[in-house]
Amino acid sequence: MGHSLTIERTLKKKSKPPENQLGFGIHYTDHMFIMDYTVENGWHQPRIIPYQPISLDPAAKVFHYGQTIFEGLKAYRTADERVLLFRPDQNFKRMNRSNARLSIPQIDEEFAIEALRQLIQVDQDWIPTSAGTSLYIRPFVISTEAYLGVAPSKSYQFIIIMSPVGPYYAEGVNPVKIFVESEYVRAVNGGIGEAKTGGNYAASLKAQEGANEKGYSQVLWLDGVHRKYIEEVGSMNVFFKINGEVHTPALNGSILDGITRKSIIQMLKHWNIPVVERTISIEELYDYHAKGQLEEAFGTGTAAVISPIGELNWRENKILLNQGQTGELSAKLYDTLTGIQNGLMADPFGWMVEGTVLSKQI
Amino acid sequence: MGHSLTIERTLKKKSKPPENQLGFGIHYTDHMFIMDYTVENGWHQPRIIPYQPISLDPAAKVFHYGQTIFEGLKAYRTADERVLLFRPDQNFKRMNRSNARLSIPQIDEEFAIEALRQLIQVDQDWIPTSAGTSLYIRPFVISTEAYLGVAPSKSYQFIIIMSPVGPYYAEGVNPVKIFVESEYVRAVNGGIGEAKTGGNYAASLKAQEGANEKGYSQVLWLDGVHRKYIEEVGSMNVFFKINGEVHTPALNGSILDGITRKSIIQMLKHWNIPVVERTISIEELYDYHAKGQLEEAFGTGTAAVISPIGELNWRENKILLNQGQTGELSAKLYDTLTGIQNGLMADPFGWMVEGTVLSKQI
Repeated sequence: MGHSLTIERTLKKKSKPPENQLGFGIHYTDHMFIMDYTVENGWHQPRIIPYQPISLDPAAKVFHYGQTIFEGLKAYRTADERVLLFRPDQNFKRMNRSNARLSIPQIDEEFAIEALRQLIQVDQDWIPTSAGTSLYIRPFVISTEAYLGVAPSKSYQFIIIMSPVGPYYAEGVNPVKIFVESEYVRAVNGGIGEAKTGGNYAASLKAQEGANEKGYSQVLWLDGVHRKYIEEVGSMNVFFKINGEVHTPALNGSILDGITRKSIIQMLKHWNIPVVERTISIEELYDYHAKGQLEEAFGTGTAAVISPIGELNWRENKILLNQGQTGELSAKLYDTLTGIQNGLMADPFGWMVEGTVLSKQI
Repeated sequence: MGHSLTIERTLKKKSKPPENQLGFGIHYTDHMFIMDYTVENGWHQPRIIPYQPISLDPAAKVFHYGQTIFEGLKAYRTADERVLLFRPDQNFKRMNRSNARLSIPQIDEEFAIEALRQLIQVDQDWIPTSAGTSLYIRPFVISTEAYLGVAPSKSYQFIIIMSPVGPYYAEGVNPVKIFVESEYVRAVNGGIGEAKTGGNYAASLKAQEGANEKGYSQVLWLDGVHRKYIEEVGSMNVFFKINGEVHTPALNGSILDGITRKSIIQMLKHWNIPVVERTISIEELYDYHAKGQLEEAFGTGTAAVISPIGELNWRENKILLNQGQTGELSAKLYDTLTGIQNGLMADPFGWMVEGTVLSKQI
């Protein structure tokens, strides 16, 4: 590749938090990966260095024009002392699709995975082992050129940080209450909804705050054109079990192409459960509920894996799903997918790949 | 206000660029303003410090979730040695509307203007005086909490940097060629289009690149719902002179409430030229052109002030506006508004306010 990765080890290791107090995205490992881009040199100087602040000119584009992308994936340490990654190729492929949408130069996907493996090797002691824990990995790209013209940056940094995390919901997998958002829109076709970029998350904060104030965990996003077709739930993809079939919004350009989403679809097909990717309106969903045919609903994403939906509130019409309990299929999907990820269950899909080889060296 | 602004002067002043080589947003003054926010202390520790890098944890929210806002305004140094600001109250009011949309805490607008005045005082030697130059001022807020959960940040920095700038278009006010964008969308009602936040600019880069490749300066944005109503041009508001009347898209939630836009409307009314804020479709615009009634078109914004449009290309239907020349009204608006801003012409609107009192002290 022409890349030569250097490693600078920290002289001062941090103390690790207790595994039962990890939370999500709060603690970070001892090291980080970083690589620079300039027009002249392309991506260069890949290096693993002690976890440290990023120092940027106040005019750096990332502070002004939101030219950023990110990814999220997890590494797991199995009972038999292997380190596994869940479909990292999919994350780095999507990273490059996001890069293309945001006018950020492409990154060598294979090299990025190899760099990640080396970073995990260096910080291997940070991978937690308790049930439900994992090492959350956050690759991201920021635009660093100190220039206030509105145009793609001429310099970037690609960075990977890692955080040991507990279960996303500390109280376990319990159904959440969801507010169907009628005022705010997350993304629209032709926009950046399909890319994993800051602007989509920034756009979601106000609606989420409003839902929280009303006692709901997240919002169900409707499309920005007709304001009736279901897109995502919070920052997750969403699935509905209707009459024994599973339905999920079809990818339409404004919905994130979730890796957990596509894995769930693959698992369901493997189990011979029909899956339909299509346009689903909120009225239709309420109609199915009225007829007693809406059996389960759940969100899917890297952080929470499966998040069952117990209640929907659409314009003050509240409906309980599966009596507000975690559905049988939701539970089976969660148990199977996390079982595969943790290495406790067989992986018939070939999803899990070696994250690193554990060593005794420091 | 309870705020006590401290000033730390640089020990090493930078050399200033020649006024005929300023460009836009390239050079920065010797100092910057910064103020911190925490949940415990609110906005605190306002300070003017030497211009310097911002150092943030790699997990800081601004790098991941785009929770940022910014403003742009200009200070002018007049021939009679006064420093003038153009409607700064409007910028800081809009800043707080953007803050509200992005779940960022409100900032004391009067204090912000006073802090800006003091910053200008410290860096007064940086205000250029040649025709067409000014001191561009960039206030912005970034989310700094090192936490990867998707939720509003618990800490922020409000920063002001300043850049001496030349005319936005080095070659003078000449009509630009504009590509009518049919694939990409900048913003949609219910989204963040009305806020001055990074995500809107990130969403625009790909379309702008495409237009540049085709030989066009910028794109004309159509709405995200019907894909036919005109919203903005590049990162400017847009106006059309039709049959002696001036038409501009009405603010609808996805269009930026431009301060130049509202000033142009006020000037036109002052001159007894009819102004209509309404929904304008691209078909309708082309119809007016076919009937010989589309007389002029121009963008408005802080950076360029007035940017005449010489050509539109909508689905390969190219039309010339005013024979590709700067229209009489466009030129008069540019001359009058920049004349008022530079203090060369009377200001019947009360827009210009004192930026600082020039002093001889260092």
